[in-house]
Amino acid sequence: MRHENIRINRERLLRRLEEMGRIGALEGGGNSRLAFTEEDREARDLLVGWMRGAGLDVRIDRFGNITGTRAGLEDGPPVMTGSHIDTVATGGKYDGVLGVLAGLEALETMNDAGIETKRPVAVTSFSNEEGVRFQPDMMGSLVYQGGLPLDEAYAIVDRDGCSIGESLERIGYIGDAPVGGNAVHAFIELHIEQGPILEDEGSTIGAVEGVQGISWTEYTFAGRSAHAGTTPMARRHDAGYVAAAVAAYVRRLAEEVGRGQVTTVGVFEVEPNLVNVVPERARITADIRNFDNGLLKDAEDKLNAFVTRTADEEGVAVERRTLARFDPTSFAPALVEKIGNAAERLGYSTRRIASGAGHDAQIMARICPTAMIFVPSVGGISHNIEEYTSDEDCEAGANVMLHALLDLAE
Amino acid sequence: MRHENIRINRERLLRRLEEMGRIGALEGGGNSRLAFTEEDREARDLLVGWMRGAGLDVRIDRFGNITGTRAGLEDGPPVMTGSHIDTVATGGKYDGVLGVLAGLEALETMNDAGIETKRPVAVTSFSNEEGVRFQPDMMGSLVYQGGLPLDEAYAIVDRDGCSIGESLERIGYIGDAPVGGNAVHAFIELHIEQGPILEDEGSTIGAVEGVQGISWTEYTFAGRSAHAGTTPMARRHDAGYVAAAVAAYVRRLAEEVGRGQVTTVGVFEVEPNLVNVVPERARITADIRNFDNGLLKDAEDKLNAFVTRTADEEGVAVERRTLARFDPTSFAPALVEKIGNAAERLGYSTRRIASGAGHDAQIMARICPTAMIFVPSVGGISHNIEEYTSDEDCEAGANVMLHALLDLAE
Repeated sequence: MRHENIRINRERLLRRLEEMGRIGALEGGGNSRLAFTEEDREARDLLVGWMRGAGLDVRIDRFGNITGTRAGLEDGPPVMTGSHIDTVATGGKYDGVLGVLAGLEALETMNDAGIETKRPVAVTSFSNEEGVRFQPDMMGSLVYQGGLPLDEAYAIVDRDGCSIGESLERIGYIGDAPVGGNAVHAFIELHIEQGPILEDEGSTIGAVEGVQGISWTEYTFAGRSAHAGTTPMARRHDAGYVAAAVAAYVRRLAEEVGRGQVTTVGVFEVEPNLVNVVPERARITADIRNFDNGLLKDAEDKLNAFVTRTADEEGVAVERRTLARFDPTSFAPALVEKIGNAAERLGYSTRRIASGAGHDAQIMARICPTAMIFVPSVGGISHNIEEYTSDEDCEAGANVMLHALLDLAE
Repeated sequence: MRHENIRINRERLLRRLEEMGRIGALEGGGNSRLAFTEEDREARDLLVGWMRGAGLDVRIDRFGNITGTRAGLEDGPPVMTGSHIDTVATGGKYDGVLGVLAGLEALETMNDAGIETKRPVAVTSFSNEEGVRFQPDMMGSLVYQGGLPLDEAYAIVDRDGCSIGESLERIGYIGDAPVGGNAVHAFIELHIEQGPILEDEGSTIGAVEGVQGISWTEYTFAGRSAHAGTTPMARRHDAGYVAAAVAAYVRRLAEEVGRGQVTTVGVFEVEPNLVNVVPERARITADIRNFDNGLLKDAEDKLNAFVTRTADEEGVAVERRTLARFDPTSFAPALVEKIGNAAERLGYSTRRIASGAGHDAQIMARICPTAMIFVPSVGGISHNIEEYTSDEDCEAGANVMLHALLDLAE
């Protein structure tokens, strides 16, 4: 094995994590850096500056995906890594960012060591992975892969009617490069686990075998507002009650389906939202995930049947909108093995793991052999300002990535 | 019986209802005229102008309650009527307004007919009956009656931290008159039923025997935000789930308690309110009402036990705040009978009825003999822009009030 003793520059990686974490910083820690906002622009500028400083060939595509490429001895399809630098509204400073900055760090380490690889190696920051303002999530990689046409993506609007096209233009990140369309030799993404398994089992590196299927549905209920004191229970068309009954059922659904099924109602709004008025309208979302697509479909069917029955019984109309739907993904076994082997060679404890969260890697898996590297999340906490991964684990993940990239690029 | 053939001026009453309904008018009908807003100020100015035009002695007290008095032959405690002109955010144009304008109309009718009454007769518009921005509801009458000290009322703040004192000063309605403190001979309030009973049973006039007890509680749940895909169900502290389970239970509670129990969750908010984040905080309100105070207390106890158990099981903290609590009220039987008799003499179909909604009259009942007159609400709809009471029924209610006032004032 060549380059067996090479390691990333821990200080440089941690310094950049720190610096990026100052953009959209929240009181008490964590970040709010929603896609296509001013904070996103500032973070992109910082990243592009670092990429140029590292001598990478930087290209920004028409959807704002940013790729820095280090040339290889040959001119074929690159080995690629990447993740995202947008966050949820109360996010942490590792989710996404670690993967992008560790990718950059791996390339700079190759520079520092004067390594020549056969294939080019590239690191990409994909636009709007979180899907907070604009759904679906994993959007930048989806457009890159061809699963969502660029024009359709531009036309997606947030709840205030503002489009992605406008937002991306406003922050100046509609680049010149075409979106995707080039062959990729392989794709590796480093990410924090965002769950408790690695920590619970004392492993440093997760070699990720696949990703849960994800189903996001928005339900809007329309009933009739009425006086809370004078309207007999039997005459109500209470949109808020139907929403609450559905939200409580969404939790029971996880128990009914079992076997790793997770379910969440993250959004809950009622109108007019007054103490003594029976709600006229309600809006909720259901986020349901499973590693088994058959079980996921069962869960979706059960939920839809419950929604229909409950709304009918209350005389409330229901509108459904699919916000995102991704089948479960299996990563390339050969790459998963390479990651496990690299971790072992470097002396890190490692185990196979599955991802509960969606990642750009699952979209890239549609066009090239793909796998992921996980590092532990303390307490399993993520999408929360308390999200934390130790310096040692960040370093370990970046080293595994460096060696996996070298292995694939040679 | 003197003045047997006297009737109110229907056109004048309807014209004023129409004119008042233009202040804070909503598209599609109805009104938004929240207490202590600019719309409220405009409505108060209009009312004060009409009262002065009718030659009444107009006094505005230090809580903004507006009273117009027509002198009697003697100088004793007045016979009083009144209601409110504030509305909920999506209210109708009859709730409250009808009672105030019909009271004014009754006094003008006495003027037009040159009637002299033994006692003074007064009409009052009480501040903030609806309790939308500032709780509790029925606040103006409560301060008038002495159940809430003026200084405490001034200090009550809305969700933006704005106080009633500031708001009342801003609209220029902190008057010179002391609040309450004078004896009142009797109080009669005309109001729309806001429920379906009179319409269903083909009665024009309800002689109201009493008012339901009302209990408003706000629950704020504090859990922990977490990633919707990676956080195992057993490790969640989902504030939104607890709120939804409680809201669904509030509905079941009405069935469990039965016997006229009504229950409503009107407010439902979660934070951060994102598809893929387990909610960290949730806020809901429970509005529960019963004519029997023992049953109402049972319902409160059951709900509190359910809240404690559900929050504990989920590892979520709960904070409770009582927004309003009024015992059931029984009106003065002699007055209820006078109202029924007046309706019969005038040829209107009438029945005894109980009020599901809270009214200023229930507060006034603490200091003087009190009763209410109800007229039908089409479809039982209220607190809704579709709220409607026919012109004939408005006229009928005002005529019954006129005769009840004359009966009491002689």
